[in-house]
Amino acid sequence: MPKIVDHDLRKRQIAEASWRVILEQGMEGATVRNIAKEAGLSLGALRHYFSTQDELLEFAMNLVIKRVTERINKIALNELPPKEKILQILLEIIPTDSEKMAEMEVWFAFVAYARHKKDTFDAKHDGIYDGLRNLIHYLDQAKLLKKNLNTELEVERLYSLVDGTAMHALLDPTRLDKGRIHKLLVYHLNSICIDEIEKTY
Amino acid sequence: MPKIVDHDLRKRQIAEASWRVILEQGMEGATVRNIAKEAGLSLGALRHYFSTQDELLEFAMNLVIKRVTERINKIALNELPPKEKILQILLEIIPTDSEKMAEMEVWFAFVAYARHKKDTFDAKHDGIYDGLRNLIHYLDQAKLLKKNLNTELEVERLYSLVDGTAMHALLDPTRLDKGRIHKLLVYHLNSICIDEIEKTY
Repeated sequence: MPKIVDHDLRKRQIAEASWRVILEQGMEGATVRNIAKEAGLSLGALRHYFSTQDELLEFAMNLVIKRVTERINKIALNELPPKEKILQILLEIIPTDSEKMAEMEVWFAFVAYARHKKDTFDAKHDGIYDGLRNLIHYLDQAKLLKKNLNTELEVERLYSLVDGTAMHALLDPTRLDKGRIHKLLVYHLNSICIDEIEKTY
Repeated sequence: MPKIVDHDLRKRQIAEASWRVILEQGMEGATVRNIAKEAGLSLGALRHYFSTQDELLEFAMNLVIKRVTERINKIALNELPPKEKILQILLEIIPTDSEKMAEMEVWFAFVAYARHKKDTFDAKHDGIYDGLRNLIHYLDQAKLLKKNLNTELEVERLYSLVDGTAMHALLDPTRLDKGRIHKLLVYHLNSICIDEIEKTY
């Protein structure tokens, strides 16, 4: 009987192996050879799934985006007060545990790498900007935003805040730990919303 | 007569050559060989100034920090109203022209690279956090901050905002152009200060 291999599962395993290599050795170490070794595959077997390194790295990056999106969609379906829901969603984007830290590390390494690969993945369209615009509009429609805010600039401000905090959490997790990130997000949301999120952290 | 070479000038020229290589080819291309070629030097001559690639890249990165710091110190000495001064300083950190864009690109590539080189340069201590804390305290002492702000969290928020905006300006300069960055910074400063910065842009 021929061996049955789940193609999608195998691709995901290879992508996850590439994350581990990036985490350990940086993008310089993310060669097809090293990734095959980490995944326990021959170079030929790996090439069966991904014919180029860029193809593999793009798949690994898209898998990060998919995972984050799935977690966010799950929260969006929860029965939570609007501002609490938004806080929970923001905490899914900013790395506060080792799993999210690994995702962010891959994102960061990938963006730096992809800048000089014009033909491949467009790193700036990771969906975060559009997602945050939806969150601000959601607060606006729920009549929770303070008066006289410029919603367009609030989207831009939140986008900078989220990505800047995510980067700092990655680079300096000891200073900017989970508690401090939580505090900062509550502080920011309270500064733009009419009633306070409870400060239980 | 022996040829007289200004050692510091030559090192700076090499660092600037390494910036150009990073800008064009990314960190993957920033080999000692490519940098020597760009600087018009033999490999041996370059090694006279920098014995390892890490040493050279660290020097190039420190030169970025030094240049930004010099520009900021120059503004700090100007006779400007406090909030206008702070706006000008923030606009020196966030890339809004090709020179600053190149600095930011080097910074970004370097940080991604240095994450996996534990022994070398500590990328998280670029002085921006301390500098922004000084700015918030300066506003506080000038009695320009709104009441009931948490200055510690305002420092953290400004730090995230500045680095997030800088990163987005680098990745997506068409959407986030100079005018929009200016608008965002004025908007943020007005949200924390008691009287408005004039909106002349």
